[in-house]
Amino acid sequence: MTTTKTKVAVVGASGYTGEELVGLLLAHPNIDLAVVTSRQFAGKSLAEVFPRFAHDKNSARLKFSDSEAKQVARDATVVFLALPHGLAAEFAKPLLSAGARVLDLSADFRVKDSDVYREFYGHEHPAADLLGKSVYGLPEVYRDQIREARLVACPGCYPTSILIPLRPLIRRKAIARKTIVASSMSGVTGAGRKAEVDYLFSECNESVRPYGVPKHRHLSEIEQELSILAREKLVIQFTPHLVPINRGIISTIYADIATNVVKMDPAVIFQSAYGQEPFVRLLGDDRLPDTKYVAGTNFIDISWRIDRRTNRIVLMSAIDNTVKGAGGQAVQCMNLMLGLPETAGLI
Amino acid sequence: MTTTKTKVAVVGASGYTGEELVGLLLAHPNIDLAVVTSRQFAGKSLAEVFPRFAHDKNSARLKFSDSEAKQVARDATVVFLALPHGLAAEFAKPLLSAGARVLDLSADFRVKDSDVYREFYGHEHPAADLLGKSVYGLPEVYRDQIREARLVACPGCYPTSILIPLRPLIRRKAIARKTIVASSMSGVTGAGRKAEVDYLFSECNESVRPYGVPKHRHLSEIEQELSILAREKLVIQFTPHLVPINRGIISTIYADIATNVVKMDPAVIFQSAYGQEPFVRLLGDDRLPDTKYVAGTNFIDISWRIDRRTNRIVLMSAIDNTVKGAGGQAVQCMNLMLGLPETAGLI
Amino acid sequence: MTTTKTKVAVVGASGYTGEELVGLLLAHPNIDLAVVTSRQFAGKSLAEVFPRFAHDKNSARLKFSDSEAKQVARDATVVFLALPHGLAAEFAKPLLSAGARVLDLSADFRVKDSDVYREFYGHEHPAADLLGKSVYGLPEVYRDQIREARLVACPGCYPTSILIPLRPLIRRKAIARKTIVASSMSGVTGAGRKAEVDYLFSECNESVRPYGVPKHRHLSEIEQELSILAREKLVIQFTPHLVPINRGIISTIYADIATNVVKMDPAVIFQSAYGQEPFVRLLGDDRLPDTKYVAGTNFIDISWRIDRRTNRIVLMSAIDNTVKGAGGQAVQCMNLMLGLPETAGLI
Amino acid sequence: MTTTKTKVAVVGASGYTGEELVGLLLAHPNIDLAVVTSRQFAGKSLAEVFPRFAHDKNSARLKFSDSEAKQVARDATVVFLALPHGLAAEFAKPLLSAGARVLDLSADFRVKDSDVYREFYGHEHPAADLLGKSVYGLPEVYRDQIREARLVACPGCYPTSILIPLRPLIRRKAIARKTIVASSMSGVTGAGRKAEVDYLFSECNESVRPYGVPKHRHLSEIEQELSILAREKLVIQFTPHLVPINRGIISTIYADIATNVVKMDPAVIFQSAYGQEPFVRLLGDDRLPDTKYVAGTNFIDISWRIDRRTNRIVLMSAIDNTVKGAGGQAVQCMNLMLGLPETAGLI
Repeated sequence: MTTTKTKVAVVGASGYTGEELVGLLLAHPNIDLAVVTSRQFAGKSLAEVFPRFAHDKNSARLKFSDSEAKQVARDATVVFLALPHGLAAEFAKPLLSAGARVLDLSADFRVKDSDVYREFYGHEHPAADLLGKSVYGLPEVYRDQIREARLVACPGCYPTSILIPLRPLIRRKAIARKTIVASSMSGVTGAGRKAEVDYLFSECNESVRPYGVPKHRHLSEIEQELSILAREKLVIQFTPHLVPINRGIISTIYADIATNVVKMDPAVIFQSAYGQEPFVRLLGDDRLPDTKYVAGTNFIDISWRIDRRTNRIVLMSAIDNTVKGAGGQAVQCMNLMLGLPETAGLI
Repeated sequence: MTTTKTKVAVVGASGYTGEELVGLLLAHPNIDLAVVTSRQFAGKSLAEVFPRFAHDKNSARLKFSDSEAKQVARDATVVFLALPHGLAAEFAKPLLSAGARVLDLSADFRVKDSDVYREFYGHEHPAADLLGKSVYGLPEVYRDQIREARLVACPGCYPTSILIPLRPLIRRKAIARKTIVASSMSGVTGAGRKAEVDYLFSECNESVRPYGVPKHRHLSEIEQELSILAREKLVIQFTPHLVPINRGIISTIYADIATNVVKMDPAVIFQSAYGQEPFVRLLGDDRLPDTKYVAGTNFIDISWRIDRRTNRIVLMSAIDNTVKGAGGQAVQCMNLMLGLPETAGLI
Repeated sequence: MTTTKTKVAVVGASGYTGEELVGLLLAHPNIDLAVVTSRQFAGKSLAEVFPRFAHDKNSARLKFSDSEAKQVARDATVVFLALPHGLAAEFAKPLLSAGARVLDLSADFRVKDSDVYREFYGHEHPAADLLGKSVYGLPEVYRDQIREARLVACPGCYPTSILIPLRPLIRRKAIARKTIVASSMSGVTGAGRKAEVDYLFSECNESVRPYGVPKHRHLSEIEQELSILAREKLVIQFTPHLVPINRGIISTIYADIATNVVKMDPAVIFQSAYGQEPFVRLLGDDRLPDTKYVAGTNFIDISWRIDRRTNRIVLMSAIDNTVKGAGGQAVQCMNLMLGLPETAGLI
Repeated sequence: MTTTKTKVAVVGASGYTGEELVGLLLAHPNIDLAVVTSRQFAGKSLAEVFPRFAHDKNSARLKFSDSEAKQVARDATVVFLALPHGLAAEFAKPLLSAGARVLDLSADFRVKDSDVYREFYGHEHPAADLLGKSVYGLPEVYRDQIREARLVACPGCYPTSILIPLRPLIRRKAIARKTIVASSMSGVTGAGRKAEVDYLFSECNESVRPYGVPKHRHLSEIEQELSILAREKLVIQFTPHLVPINRGIISTIYADIATNVVKMDPAVIFQSAYGQEPFVRLLGDDRLPDTKYVAGTNFIDISWRIDRRTNRIVLMSAIDNTVKGAGGQAVQCMNLMLGLPETAGLI
């Protein structure tokens, strides 16, 4: 019954995002995970590096390579890049030239303006000519463009958790645009699988801490996307915090209700915006989000409360930073690009 | 060198706050912990109930009693109440009548206005006549009044973490009062030692969740204290979140810089306000707070960042909710009441 | 392609085991989860009680009932019992009489000898006549009997983690039977979703503790199964410890190598015993087990080391206590009973 | 009232052991912490590197140096070495020559036999001539020798937790010496503050794993000390496990009761051995140890159970690996060396 599966590569597969992607792709009914690369683990099998997948026959057979872009493009028609910022852009160029379709999980193609990129990332963009060609991989916003895209820039984890709840209110002009404050908490996989003292168990356990205050890099893409929607330059406040969980982000977002809004009904607004979305769950009045309910899934849970005392709306969202915030959303985009059911391999 | 020690009682000593208090008082050089009460553990020794203290000779000797207020007042001159809301007020009355000095760790005497109490706590205040006589036990604000007080209402944990950083900016009119948003994260001891499914290990581990949105009870005392300072009714936004640590609160607080402020220098403002405070540590430009640096201590760590892009100030504070947020602050108040060095038994 | 699905019930579905079962059954391609019961949650939908499954259409539709056994047997042909000890036996009787096939996840039918049951569980067995009719639900041992069984007693979590690694060595007489020591560590879901102070987050976090020393209830089924295999009464040492993780058991098992064994090759023994088992992963010489690699899966990972200094073998196993130690193994048994692929819904 | 304080140095103070030592010494009433060295942090103040101590005036004043041994010996009369294995021995030589008294927290001087050292540590001992001069720093065993020692080899964390409970039974010949099995669990600070992927938060959280099977380095000192006591070569089984807590070790130790023992009364044996020890707490029949009750303290909690079914005794102990297992025990030794009360600065 199954026909030919699409050959897919994951470049830089050794981190938490890469591992999540590999797991999703191994289990995906329409995909043949044909290439995984890692400089560090070249020559080792997937099963050796990720014992979690050791029972999977492909995992025992498939070995990490240290292939260059051209070789990868010969072996796969869709390529995920799970590389550090900067390196991803360099790898994307020859892949695209060779005809591969690319989903980049780094920040390299998210920001369209190379000046903004330089401001937030501290160096020149390595492939500025490609910026205009990438599609921001948020299916709830750019579904149609993603279907046709050759280069998808998968959104950051914090931006995913903030943009999805905020967008319907901004589009409806329901909130005062200068009053947006987003306070987020992320699990430690968000820092990557890097050997740094700050992320040792004994430094993170029994620890909660803000960081990147006041100008975290993810602000650049959040503000870009909100500004496009608002048709004016929009600036928000954003503070990330590190909390001792493996997976999960909670974003609590505050905004003044716009002065001309007499009575806001967020349930109607959100139902209208996301009622048909396969991965958006609206919690309504009786529940608040909790990372444990989205861990390991591609869902975003959203709830809201209006505070009559302060005339503000409080939005709260939960995602798994490694799934809807990274690998799962990338697979969702890939499904769109390949004309597969959007939920294939994800539910 | 010291002569007679003051006899002290802890009423309702079986919870996390009670345990922290008991530990501090057992080790306090000027105190004789003479009475501990607990309905549940009456007849058991401190050592049996709190194995952590089992080596302490007083802990092996001292037994929990189920004494009534009058008896407690006979056996101790200073009484800490670590009882649930409502019960504390009932217990305080006869204690005060009998001449004891009382430090209440519940919310019963924090809010001065019995209407506000009813609004936030959902029932009539059980001893409204005493409201006018209590002193809000925040030494950084009410040091002189605490020295003379017969009834101290020890502040809540969230209010401590929010009021101390906010006060100097409000007094200086440095921030726009209607724009204050406080997003806080608390460890699970804050929920008390109650057998409830929501606080089981497997419900809290790998979980982060907002709660009490938008009108948590602690708002009542936060707004009361800020309004007194501002000399006008002040309303803020406050969202607490539960995070999987035992001890600690981080409060991240946002406010617009007041329009008439040309150049704010928070370092000067905070140094002026708290430079001499024994338990306030100002982190300055190069560090951000982390709960692990205050865990087990009575310190509050405070830092700040000005965001020129948004014209906001971001304040961040860290405390141990069971120490500076409860038992330690209560001992700090007791030290003032007894004319002891403010840091006795705490550093 | 699949035709009719088997109607299945989960009785007592509100605990951690029940939740895991429900999740597996909702996603199972051959099963129609038709009945879930819970006294506590009767009338609520699965989606309300388990927000994790809220996107599943069955989960939104299916409501917890408080049905009696006869009604359950009318609505389902296979019934899982996730009830407390004692209650399960009472429920099983009428179910079996009504023709249902029953998989019991409690301890009620694991021990065949009602005297041993009384010794370890402290009361008379409530349905001793059924003891002879149950099959111990360890597919790696009793696969054929499980296929035909009408009443399956699903093994305890610790026993699963201890019996699978020990059995091949006992059958081969490779170890000295009187020298077996098993030291196990379990995550906190093993204690169930009960509101008890001992299992609060702040009591378990930063805590490791032995319990049930020296005679934990699970010893009764471990020793029963080992004795059947050894054809003589076999007694072992077993100490469980509680560790602060949600899911997972590590069992480290020690035994003297039998005196008549000249050279033992555990790799050959284990490969011969389990090389074809779909859920047993043999780690070999280069890896040791880790709970994180089996969490959320039905696998048991096994490794071993021979210590020439002491002439002992050290066996180490890892399972997820809620999956291979409970719900997953129960589904594995159900697959056998229904003639489905053994891995259906599990990989 | 205070007279002159002893000047003390901590060499290699930047790890978890160093931090614990520094904290204890800053608070010690009889000690002047005069020197802290760290290659990595040279030039920074204690307060900068350890924000936990930022309020302490000495901590703000005292800067890390990169001093050589001779300079350290000029500035301090007692020197703690918290250096990696190998480096400690090299540093100790010139310190001792210069007249300093040295407490080494590495493994360099614990094993008296340089052949055993080579076998377990894989290289020649760098200062074999000093081996005969060191005293094993377990005050419960070598109190008198420690008082006079110039070079104290502070015991490893696991050995401390195993030797203290085992010794009285071996001395009394109450257990069969060939049957000893020790299964231990340690928190992650035991792995040190090293930037390694294996100890990242997301690798340790939700993870339990054995390691160092079957021949962990600590076996060498455990067996040395037990053999000295037994007056014959004694070999034991020992398996450490990593568990997701910051601080704490539980050791569960199994041994057959010796065949000639008619009736063993462990309570009498332990009371006789340790009834007067300031840091040994005997839990008796009604309690089992828990790391959370010893965390942050220098106590070892010990309990035992006799299993009549198997004729074994099960010993269980709990310590804080960074205190009684490292820094606290070193301070206890220092107190003895300086003629101070043994508990000074520790209770």
